[in-house]
Amino acid sequence: MTDIRMIGSELPNIPWQDRPDGCTAPVWRYSGNPIIGRNPLPEVARIFNSAVIPYGGGFIGVFRGEQRNGIPHIYLGRSSDAIHWEFEPERIAFTDRNGAPFMPPYAYDPRLVKVDDTYYIMWCQDAFGPTIGIAETKDFMTFTRLENPYLPYNRNAVLFPRKINGNFVMLSRPCDNGHTAFGDIFLSESPDTEFWGRHRHVMGSSGNWWENLKIGAGAAPIETDKGWLLFYHGVVNTCNGYVYSIGAAILDINEPSRVLHRCENYILAPEEWYEERGFVPNVCFPCAALTDPATGRIAIYYGCADSYVGVAFTTVQTLYDYILAHDKLQKGDGDTGIR
Amino acid sequence: MTDIRMIGSELPNIPWQDRPDGCTAPVWRYSGNPIIGRNPLPEVARIFNSAVIPYGGGFIGVFRGEQRNGIPHIYLGRSSDAIHWEFEPERIAFTDRNGAPFMPPYAYDPRLVKVDDTYYIMWCQDAFGPTIGIAETKDFMTFTRLENPYLPYNRNAVLFPRKINGNFVMLSRPCDNGHTAFGDIFLSESPDTEFWGRHRHVMGSSGNWWENLKIGAGAAPIETDKGWLLFYHGVVNTCNGYVYSIGAAILDINEPSRVLHRCENYILAPEEWYEERGFVPNVCFPCAALTDPATGRIAIYYGCADSYVGVAFTTVQTLYDYILAHDKLQKGDGDTGIR
Amino acid sequence: MTDIRMIGSELPNIPWQDRPDGCTAPVWRYSGNPIIGRNPLPEVARIFNSAVIPYGGGFIGVFRGEQRNGIPHIYLGRSSDAIHWEFEPERIAFTDRNGAPFMPPYAYDPRLVKVDDTYYIMWCQDAFGPTIGIAETKDFMTFTRLENPYLPYNRNAVLFPRKINGNFVMLSRPCDNGHTAFGDIFLSESPDTEFWGRHRHVMGSSGNWWENLKIGAGAAPIETDKGWLLFYHGVVNTCNGYVYSIGAAILDINEPSRVLHRCENYILAPEEWYEERGFVPNVCFPCAALTDPATGRIAIYYGCADSYVGVAFTTVQTLYDYILAHDKLQKGDGDTGIR
Amino acid sequence: MTDIRMIGSELPNIPWQDRPDGCTAPVWRYSGNPIIGRNPLPEVARIFNSAVIPYGGGFIGVFRGEQRNGIPHIYLGRSSDAIHWEFEPERIAFTDRNGAPFMPPYAYDPRLVKVDDTYYIMWCQDAFGPTIGIAETKDFMTFTRLENPYLPYNRNAVLFPRKINGNFVMLSRPCDNGHTAFGDIFLSESPDTEFWGRHRHVMGSSGNWWENLKIGAGAAPIETDKGWLLFYHGVVNTCNGYVYSIGAAILDINEPSRVLHRCENYILAPEEWYEERGFVPNVCFPCAALTDPATGRIAIYYGCADSYVGVAFTTVQTLYDYILAHDKLQKGDGDTGIR
Amino acid sequence: MTDIRMIGSELPNIPWQDRPDGCTAPVWRYSGNPIIGRNPLPEVARIFNSAVIPYGGGFIGVFRGEQRNGIPHIYLGRSSDAIHWEFEPERIAFTDRNGAPFMPPYAYDPRLVKVDDTYYIMWCQDAFGPTIGIAETKDFMTFTRLENPYLPYNRNAVLFPRKINGNFVMLSRPCDNGHTAFGDIFLSESPDTEFWGRHRHVMGSSGNWWENLKIGAGAAPIETDKGWLLFYHGVVNTCNGYVYSIGAAILDINEPSRVLHRCENYILAPEEWYEERGFVPNVCFPCAALTDPATGRIAIYYGCADSYVGVAFTTVQTLYDYILAHDKLQKGDGDTGIR
Amino acid sequence: MTDIRMIGSELPNIPWQDRPDGCTAPVWRYSGNPIIGRNPLPEVARIFNSAVIPYGGGFIGVFRGEQRNGIPHIYLGRSSDAIHWEFEPERIAFTDRNGAPFMPPYAYDPRLVKVDDTYYIMWCQDAFGPTIGIAETKDFMTFTRLENPYLPYNRNAVLFPRKINGNFVMLSRPCDNGHTAFGDIFLSESPDTEFWGRHRHVMGSSGNWWENLKIGAGAAPIETDKGWLLFYHGVVNTCNGYVYSIGAAILDINEPSRVLHRCENYILAPEEWYEERGFVPNVCFPCAALTDPATGRIAIYYGCADSYVGVAFTTVQTLYDYILAHDKLQKGDGDTGIR
Repeated sequence: MTDIRMIGSELPNIPWQDRPDGCTAPVWRYSGNPIIGRNPLPEVARIFNSAVIPYGGGFIGVFRGEQRNGIPHIYLGRSSDAIHWEFEPERIAFTDRNGAPFMPPYAYDPRLVKVDDTYYIMWCQDAFGPTIGIAETKDFMTFTRLENPYLPYNRNAVLFPRKINGNFVMLSRPCDNGHTAFGDIFLSESPDTEFWGRHRHVMGSSGNWWENLKIGAGAAPIETDKGWLLFYHGVVNTCNGYVYSIGAAILDINEPSRVLHRCENYILAPEEWYEERGFVPNVCFPCAALTDPATGRIAIYYGCADSYVGVAFTTVQTLYDYILAHDKLQKGDGDTGIR
Repeated sequence: MTDIRMIGSELPNIPWQDRPDGCTAPVWRYSGNPIIGRNPLPEVARIFNSAVIPYGGGFIGVFRGEQRNGIPHIYLGRSSDAIHWEFEPERIAFTDRNGAPFMPPYAYDPRLVKVDDTYYIMWCQDAFGPTIGIAETKDFMTFTRLENPYLPYNRNAVLFPRKINGNFVMLSRPCDNGHTAFGDIFLSESPDTEFWGRHRHVMGSSGNWWENLKIGAGAAPIETDKGWLLFYHGVVNTCNGYVYSIGAAILDINEPSRVLHRCENYILAPEEWYEERGFVPNVCFPCAALTDPATGRIAIYYGCADSYVGVAFTTVQTLYDYILAHDKLQKGDGDTGIR
Repeated sequence: MTDIRMIGSELPNIPWQDRPDGCTAPVWRYSGNPIIGRNPLPEVARIFNSAVIPYGGGFIGVFRGEQRNGIPHIYLGRSSDAIHWEFEPERIAFTDRNGAPFMPPYAYDPRLVKVDDTYYIMWCQDAFGPTIGIAETKDFMTFTRLENPYLPYNRNAVLFPRKINGNFVMLSRPCDNGHTAFGDIFLSESPDTEFWGRHRHVMGSSGNWWENLKIGAGAAPIETDKGWLLFYHGVVNTCNGYVYSIGAAILDINEPSRVLHRCENYILAPEEWYEERGFVPNVCFPCAALTDPATGRIAIYYGCADSYVGVAFTTVQTLYDYILAHDKLQKGDGDTGIR
Repeated sequence: MTDIRMIGSELPNIPWQDRPDGCTAPVWRYSGNPIIGRNPLPEVARIFNSAVIPYGGGFIGVFRGEQRNGIPHIYLGRSSDAIHWEFEPERIAFTDRNGAPFMPPYAYDPRLVKVDDTYYIMWCQDAFGPTIGIAETKDFMTFTRLENPYLPYNRNAVLFPRKINGNFVMLSRPCDNGHTAFGDIFLSESPDTEFWGRHRHVMGSSGNWWENLKIGAGAAPIETDKGWLLFYHGVVNTCNGYVYSIGAAILDINEPSRVLHRCENYILAPEEWYEERGFVPNVCFPCAALTDPATGRIAIYYGCADSYVGVAFTTVQTLYDYILAHDKLQKGDGDTGIR
Repeated sequence: MTDIRMIGSELPNIPWQDRPDGCTAPVWRYSGNPIIGRNPLPEVARIFNSAVIPYGGGFIGVFRGEQRNGIPHIYLGRSSDAIHWEFEPERIAFTDRNGAPFMPPYAYDPRLVKVDDTYYIMWCQDAFGPTIGIAETKDFMTFTRLENPYLPYNRNAVLFPRKINGNFVMLSRPCDNGHTAFGDIFLSESPDTEFWGRHRHVMGSSGNWWENLKIGAGAAPIETDKGWLLFYHGVVNTCNGYVYSIGAAILDINEPSRVLHRCENYILAPEEWYEERGFVPNVCFPCAALTDPATGRIAIYYGCADSYVGVAFTTVQTLYDYILAHDKLQKGDGDTGIR
Repeated sequence: MTDIRMIGSELPNIPWQDRPDGCTAPVWRYSGNPIIGRNPLPEVARIFNSAVIPYGGGFIGVFRGEQRNGIPHIYLGRSSDAIHWEFEPERIAFTDRNGAPFMPPYAYDPRLVKVDDTYYIMWCQDAFGPTIGIAETKDFMTFTRLENPYLPYNRNAVLFPRKINGNFVMLSRPCDNGHTAFGDIFLSESPDTEFWGRHRHVMGSSGNWWENLKIGAGAAPIETDKGWLLFYHGVVNTCNGYVYSIGAAILDINEPSRVLHRCENYILAPEEWYEERGFVPNVCFPCAALTDPATGRIAIYYGCADSYVGVAFTTVQTLYDYILAHDKLQKGDGDTGIR
């Protein structure tokens, strides 16, 4: 067993429960799941696939709020314990660089990442097909929308929490304009968040039957002394519908398109009623993680069945040991880089 | 707030429960749902997608009974309170105009409407592909099957409860011969129930994500002093299957292919276990409504997951206020008429 | 051999060529095919799938003119010999009953039929999906568009050339809203061209491999003393694309939804370069026929590869003998009527 | 009522519960279902679609164990009461005839049948597409893999429990290389388990709506004095996903490709939560049955939602009466044999 | 350059033309192509995809004759020079082993192979889906149909011209029940033509863009001192339809599921009008080859656009040199054998 | 009529033929088409979809050469008259910035554009799906491959021939990873060819039936005093396959994502045998244009049926007049810009 250590600020108020007795799984659920139920706001039917971050001693988050007309938008929420959340009733009011209001026709699956002293929100929106929208804020009062980083068609973008080699680095998942039946994770760099290039392939769907259709990055990569810890979702096309599970991998710290370890097993798959039934059955969809380097604790935030928000726990050591014990790359399945 | 009033006979024994405290939704479920469970008859596995009407001081209804061989037929049921139902063990025995027996190879999703002194049953059946069958009865003893009103392929037909401008008026949903991936509501007129014409487009699937794949008329339109209140189902194609929800609109009283108001929000969507899981998951499918103009009460009858029958309540005023507060047509999305 | 005789007006100037020596096929091509080539008008790229009729001692026709923007509309053409045609440069200007201009967004595959003293044009147009448009004219100067006879989705409609049992009778082919992969011929009646009913199934695609995907009526049925002679198109889905051929059947004279004889062989299939290559390869698509009862001659007008117009010849006796010698119905494959 | 009697060894310790009061269904569930829950082994997420047999006074079985990487393999399990099972932690180690290890890349849906003094395991595996693998054992210590009996693509193979007319006889279901949308049951013979021929069609999907997409053999046929009793699965494609139910038929004892009786009704369909939700919703998938000829008792083992194992009970007389009362073949729908 | 020599009887009257000057291709067309044109018999519209063999000093063949009803059957033809053919007007009359007539509902793409003193005809026919039919004859007067060798779904079967290791050996191409979008070549053995086993994968579609969708064996393998020379067809799915080309490979003489060499280039692809347009455009489909070991000459018979028969020439040395110069297996792409 | 003038260098040796008498089309074919036939090199079966440019007093070009294994690569060709071409036998040998060899697994549909003193080649290649490759050369001796400008999935990229507002500007067509059934033209900017951003939508497929499925930029935009003249391809999905035609539009000179005029008619569509039949039937695919501002002459180079290269002529004035006379934007169909 090799020791692993997360890098970053301490978070003593991270939500936490110990692993239940007898549980051998690398990740375990919060006993109070789901933490956000149906109809959290009069005009919002479901909140799920959402991202949270420590802020001002408590927590703040960006939430996919599916309105009662079915169209998703992004809502702001605040919490003191990261379990109980209060939401602003209106969706986030973006502006462009000139201060003019900007509201995408829809926006979903947001991520929230702090780089230096700025918070970035990424989401999927329409721009002649689905692609990535991005905005920045420093105070969660004004939200300035930036240029779209990519052409359509793209989903599931998330920034790394710091620049690497002087550039911003983003993961994303190119797709088509429908319910895409394929999908690999790519990495791109930018000196300024406006112009993007050096696109690299990180990893694709695999021969493992929980992720053999498509995959997509989840939470912002977590920095450790062994590399970047990435949570992502993987999808299998069963003989009667899709199943979305959560996987994990370790990326090289300086060249993060290089995959060092990739867990051949899912670390969490739909088993509970709130994951198996809902608006979209059989979905565990990670979008964020809280971490406390002091204790090694990690709290994963994931969408459940496109209807609820769930929390699951692990420690960086537990997970790292599990990944190494089930490392797919030792079987020679680790292509990377650009052709 | 504008007052609205339903037109028609009083129904003091309409089933009813008040809106639960804290509920802000425009429609709320009967606490005893589902009112009809699995295996209601030895040879019938599931009853759902069915229509009821007041009759003889109590209630009578036509029910989609899915036999244990999986094939649906129409069964008659009677009730004194519209909650507890007793079914005749054999399917309805139709005859043609000459009294010869007529039994379609299958029949499903019946509606039941009284026009003048006659009760009309409409359903979907095979006639070289799915299309609409129709029969009339005055006594629920003999059921005379009439000419099919349309060529194939059609589903979800329902008559208006009175003639308009001297003609019978029917809503329907042209389709293809499979699990159709599109569908708009049309209106047709007939002087005699035999010859049909003046086909008009009423409304189509919309940009709202609960109804962006297809829609279809549900209960017979309810007459009010503000227009015809229409309950319909809308379908979204999520990334893992369809979801059927219930929507509402107001049609012009004299020219009912003109949509006056259309609620951009669903008014009921699958949230309960009996709606989310069953033979066809995630289905709320309205087929009938009882109304009491004296109190403004409405009881909606809807199929649940192609396995159960559920009831939900609202008042005409509650619903009208909600529709107006979320009127899609104020956003300029109201095409109608024939091209 | 049984004698057969066509009923109707003589047409001594019908175009004609005798059957080539050695040809055993029941139908033979005009040696000057195609009679209408590419780019017949500055704004029209291709004319095909068109219908002609004797008029004023010469001939007149309605032509599918595919504009250089690819959108089809109907153009009028005149000819003295039915081989060389002159076209009006602008599409036909329809009006509604009030004289207001009516122009469908597109219109294709017209048929042209005289009933009593009125000429009717039928075509396929959009009305929330493809369906049948119809107009009438008495002088080919004003063209009054009537109500659409059917709901969408429908194509390939053609009237019978006289009323039967006091009603107008029309064949059509219900379909879906795309490049439909199925299609049977149905019959409907109307007392007034506005309200339609008594829909009957006439015949469907068959086990013969030139028509096992879908079929559709072509020319207006030709009256004979043995029944109505119907030319129709049949489509097979080969392992590399569709092939459209021409078939023939005889319908009962008084109850024309009854098929008396149906030829199991195609009577013309794509073999020539102008039928095999073009905008839509491998298409022979009949839309009209000229007949001379005095001589028994028939001239079939058919679209070639969605690019040209071709003519083919036969006599009513040659064809009748061939149909009887290859009568599919003697093999017990003749379903008809309504279920 | 005609008496029916099973042929074979007594099994006094067959698991059993009497039919619940008021239940009219021909098959009833074990009240302790599911008998195998989630995560039965540290590396195995789900066990289902598995086969058991009496052995050594207790029971032994071959189990589809879906590993946490999603890939299925076959695991051995032992039980004293056929309800509580203990599993070997590693998958079955097959060898070829020379003793060299053989491990298919995946293996699923095993059946287990004793012919003479040898136990045969059949499963679905990859050999340039899905096809049938087969192995033999006499002691459940060494498992010798035999030649694949068929070309790809095939699934759901099961041997008869004795030779017929001197040959081994196997049922199977030819398919394509994906989630096949069709499927009939065929029968093949072999003098030696290596060379197979005399392929016969047994029965196909039917017009009954619980089995109109595809069917496949389940448990090894059970010998009775009235013929072979076959449990099989049938699949319907509803408007929102597939449903897998259990059906039953009686095959001729000497010429088992002849179907004597076929029950038009399913005998068990998904109704309980463990059948309706899970990794693959709405699945009841039979793979084995225990029988006690002395009492006529039958215990059916079936996979539930690709997540659990369930048991259901009936008696041979109850079932036979039900099949005869709902015999599809009396309606003339019983094609069989080779063309 | 390595010398190669064919093994077998001399055929001095093999049809022949030398390679045209300037032609660098390994195979060249007969200048009189197509040798069989449209409408070769009154009831047969097209002959193509057919097989010929020397017989009685001249030549005999089995021909896919597409009747004018579109349904294919097998016709016998005779020729003195293998270029000009005369056909029997009626399809081949098969009998079963008891002498009873047997006529499949359709039969296409026949092959004709002599093993010992018996001639075998293989074709594709329906038996609950497409599969292989086979018959034997010694005199081309009586044709005895044997058991179908495989379950459905299968096409493109051809025997080797002698037993190998005491068993009959056949190539075939498992498929699905439609216009299959995949397909690899497999090999099976039989001691008696009735029971088949030891199925082996020979080769699949490849990364070469003329054969990346599916492949299928063509002519019976030709014995040489370097292995079996196999002609096969390969299919690519272009952005507008399929293209069928001819490829070549060398199989091991004693273990013919082992591919020794495989030409990465097609050896003939559609370029001429009779290959590019017809009932099925862009098809070159080999079904037979004549060989003269004395001169090394080979005449390939191939179907053209499902409309014509063409002949192309090469020598065994020319082809062998070309295959070796473009050997795909030197690039490490040579999987074989059973898993 | 408004005069229009091209901006750029004179090209007195541009190939040229005057418009044929009687031709009213805006573009006319070279009478010697196709200028490059089948099998131009021993290992290359077809050359098409290629780009040429003046160079060193003559002409040079990059050509899609489909090898006999079906895989496309880029070949260099030289010509003194731009009609007769000589090709280098080996594909272009790219290197990366460090001089290491780079060879994509395939490369097709190249464009060739000079910006300042550098020539840029763009093509479609695989990088975990199809996307754009790009290389630069100054001497056509060394070809330095640059960073891929986009994530997959993208095709049909072409640079503008000069920087605009200080940035490189490129058109491209985002797509999916198959034979994409949709496609719009987008514009992106870059300060350095490495980082790309400010993505703008230029135009999409339209309601015109020759371009209602997808479109893609063809030749590099031609600078005029009225804006950028763009040739592009448009695709329609007919009822039996795709057709690729050539269209034209005028973009704003300083803000080229703004479409000033767009011709609703195609300017060239498949009509000749070399466009209608070949490896991919019915394709006219423009990739380059030569221009002579002194005379206004334009020579368009386009691929024919994925089998040949053709040339067509026009003058800038003829084309501009035609575009203005058929300007789609006057009908209000001109969306542009980013959402």
